[in-house]
Amino acid sequence: MSDNIANIPIAATEPLNATESDPNRLGWMRGSPPLPDKQVRFDDEGMYSFPKLRWAYSNIRRLVPTTNVARGSGPVAVLPRADRDDIDGVMFQPIGRSDTMSWAQSLAANYTDGIVVLHRGRIVHERYFGALDAQRAHIAWSVTKSFFGTIAATLIAEARLDPGAPVSVYVPELAGSGLGNATLRQVLDMTTAIHYSEDYTDPEAGIWQHGRAGGILPRTPAQIGPASFYEFLATLQQDGAHGQGFTYKTVNTDVLGWVLRRATGQSLSELLSQRLWSRLGAEHDGCLMVDPTGTEFAGGGFNCCLRDLARFGEMLRNDGAWNGQGIVPKAAIDDIRGGGDPAHFARAGYVTLPGASYRDMWWVLHNEHGAYCARGIHGQGVYIDPKAEMVIARFASHHIAGNMGIDPTTLPAYHALAKFLISSGS
Amino acid sequence: MSDNIANIPIAATEPLNATESDPNRLGWMRGSPPLPDKQVRFDDEGMYSFPKLRWAYSNIRRLVPTTNVARGSGPVAVLPRADRDDIDGVMFQPIGRSDTMSWAQSLAANYTDGIVVLHRGRIVHERYFGALDAQRAHIAWSVTKSFFGTIAATLIAEARLDPGAPVSVYVPELAGSGLGNATLRQVLDMTTAIHYSEDYTDPEAGIWQHGRAGGILPRTPAQIGPASFYEFLATLQQDGAHGQGFTYKTVNTDVLGWVLRRATGQSLSELLSQRLWSRLGAEHDGCLMVDPTGTEFAGGGFNCCLRDLARFGEMLRNDGAWNGQGIVPKAAIDDIRGGGDPAHFARAGYVTLPGASYRDMWWVLHNEHGAYCARGIHGQGVYIDPKAEMVIARFASHHIAGNMGIDPTTLPAYHALAKFLISSGS
Repeated sequence: MSDNIANIPIAATEPLNATESDPNRLGWMRGSPPLPDKQVRFDDEGMYSFPKLRWAYSNIRRLVPTTNVARGSGPVAVLPRADRDDIDGVMFQPIGRSDTMSWAQSLAANYTDGIVVLHRGRIVHERYFGALDAQRAHIAWSVTKSFFGTIAATLIAEARLDPGAPVSVYVPELAGSGLGNATLRQVLDMTTAIHYSEDYTDPEAGIWQHGRAGGILPRTPAQIGPASFYEFLATLQQDGAHGQGFTYKTVNTDVLGWVLRRATGQSLSELLSQRLWSRLGAEHDGCLMVDPTGTEFAGGGFNCCLRDLARFGEMLRNDGAWNGQGIVPKAAIDDIRGGGDPAHFARAGYVTLPGASYRDMWWVLHNEHGAYCARGIHGQGVYIDPKAEMVIARFASHHIAGNMGIDPTTLPAYHALAKFLISSGS
Repeated sequence: MSDNIANIPIAATEPLNATESDPNRLGWMRGSPPLPDKQVRFDDEGMYSFPKLRWAYSNIRRLVPTTNVARGSGPVAVLPRADRDDIDGVMFQPIGRSDTMSWAQSLAANYTDGIVVLHRGRIVHERYFGALDAQRAHIAWSVTKSFFGTIAATLIAEARLDPGAPVSVYVPELAGSGLGNATLRQVLDMTTAIHYSEDYTDPEAGIWQHGRAGGILPRTPAQIGPASFYEFLATLQQDGAHGQGFTYKTVNTDVLGWVLRRATGQSLSELLSQRLWSRLGAEHDGCLMVDPTGTEFAGGGFNCCLRDLARFGEMLRNDGAWNGQGIVPKAAIDDIRGGGDPAHFARAGYVTLPGASYRDMWWVLHNEHGAYCARGIHGQGVYIDPKAEMVIARFASHHIAGNMGIDPTTLPAYHALAKFLISSGS
């Protein structure tokens, strides 16, 4: 910390830092009942506003309807512990800055709610902050996409889904929409071209219309329009040619969810439980947010405990074999790890992800460690570094939604830790 | 079954029977998305209408916000199996009828979703119907009250609650309301006198206002008034003298919930988990419905799996010792089993419960077996028969809310089964 005047937060312009915005310190939802100015509510959108979201993201099911994703009745897959006290001091250079930062400092800079680092399958680092603890489910936001992308890649490897088929083959109702003629591959790699914005700073963006349609955001009587995720998806219009470039649009995953339901005859909660959650030896059930028609929010509605998210990453790092069984075929994992077309990706202009690509709802870095990751707004993530034999699972409640604002103190920290673990052994 | 014309259901006047109203047969919430006429929704109150409620009661958390009641990380308390095939044929005479009915017939007559019978701690009978299975949580409705009554009796036995103190000692905000000057004992035994109706057939009854305030029922913009459970409780007016007679009013339990929160500093979900759910060796987490301020519905919001409900009953039958530990002090259980004042109870006119009483949010039959029970609308129940060493846990979705309509084929069936188990041994 420096006393340099430039570092002193300025009221009304500088957001509260991680300590100042700690939900325990601010007393959200304490008392019986909580005082009106201490309530985090659904109906006033408070749950989506900073700093209230620091409490809400660890309490989603108390605010909206959810459906269970069962862990099943098998034993927990034990994660052996090998805690290290030398990780907090790992130094790295944030993107775009000339100074350095420690791993421990990065956790505060990123408004981390919890982080687990596995090295060779053992927990070497685990921290919880604010409203989160090891037993509590946190919203994964778009990390959810990578779960369903992994299931889709599995079904493709099993020849139960045809990546070259247009969406309308699986979902005839979308034949007249902008996504009906996109192939499943284009949907999975988000190279579809539709008129829809994912700009979280624009209150009229499609992502907010999608959320209001699905009941994830409150609706006033004046807000008419689509009243379920599917009704909204059917209204999307094409905007250019599919397959020309990567543009990140959550609706692709909800279309994928519709395809998965039709292809399997299962709900997404059943499918996620059967294919992944019940096989991972998870400690706890997960849950998915649902819309008023009972349809799960495939693009971002999953909630789970952090160690279980780490188990998912560790299963992938182990080529799909985990907990004494094959869970995801290696062909599916190879397809994910191989990545998409970096030229498609480059057009989207992600300055913190040079040379990266997007494949099967995963972000592939194409770095010298072969790292790939699942990413969700406000700092959610699973980061798999095959060369370092490292998996990082993180939940956060950053005041910024987009990861472009969070990557500068995240990606170089993860890479520095990977190199540290390789060099120091364990 | 008889071909007597009097037994043939008459459309539009006779409700669908259990088979006809089976939620699988009717196809509720099937398909992606479910067709509009197959949807069970919160916003149109469909979840509370028969036959949709037959699906909804096994899917509450998909319809409203809930908070987790954690089972903890201990092992499951195994319930040994000793299934008997001679129970289905146990005969009994329904109240008010001259013919007899078999146990198996009673399950259909009662729109049973699931039933577990324990004899000497072993499962001798277990059945699931419709939308329920052994792994799925079902709404317990007012059985919830008996959980909080048991916790209150425990805290009284520990001298942490004073049954003679007025409610306002614990909750000063209620000093000006009709319940502020009632003693905790009067609240626990529902001998308070307040202007409030529990008539489920009256759409203007207090119970519905209570539900709308708590967000358990949808509110239209025109429906102004209290906007949380606590706001509603503060509006209740006294109507006569407390302590003169039993009248069943759910708001007593929500007042008890407020007292418990203030006395312990815990939320009801934390308290229920710490005191009971985490100690029972439950198979699954439970959950509680919450209002828009995060306050749990103490009067009826608990959901759990059926075997776990049976474990709760078995713990009580064993004088509070279960799963290798003392969970509820025997003094608390003796207080429950001893019952309340039958003269107080008689004034309420429950024709199916002659000689019964109400104590600590439990219904005490004062029959020759010393049976007592927890009861919830539409047929939920836990029935403990000490003499027969029998515990019955049942979830149901009867088209009638009040148990007066369900008791005639329930209470004599339970008593007949108890006598059968005593006489036949095991």
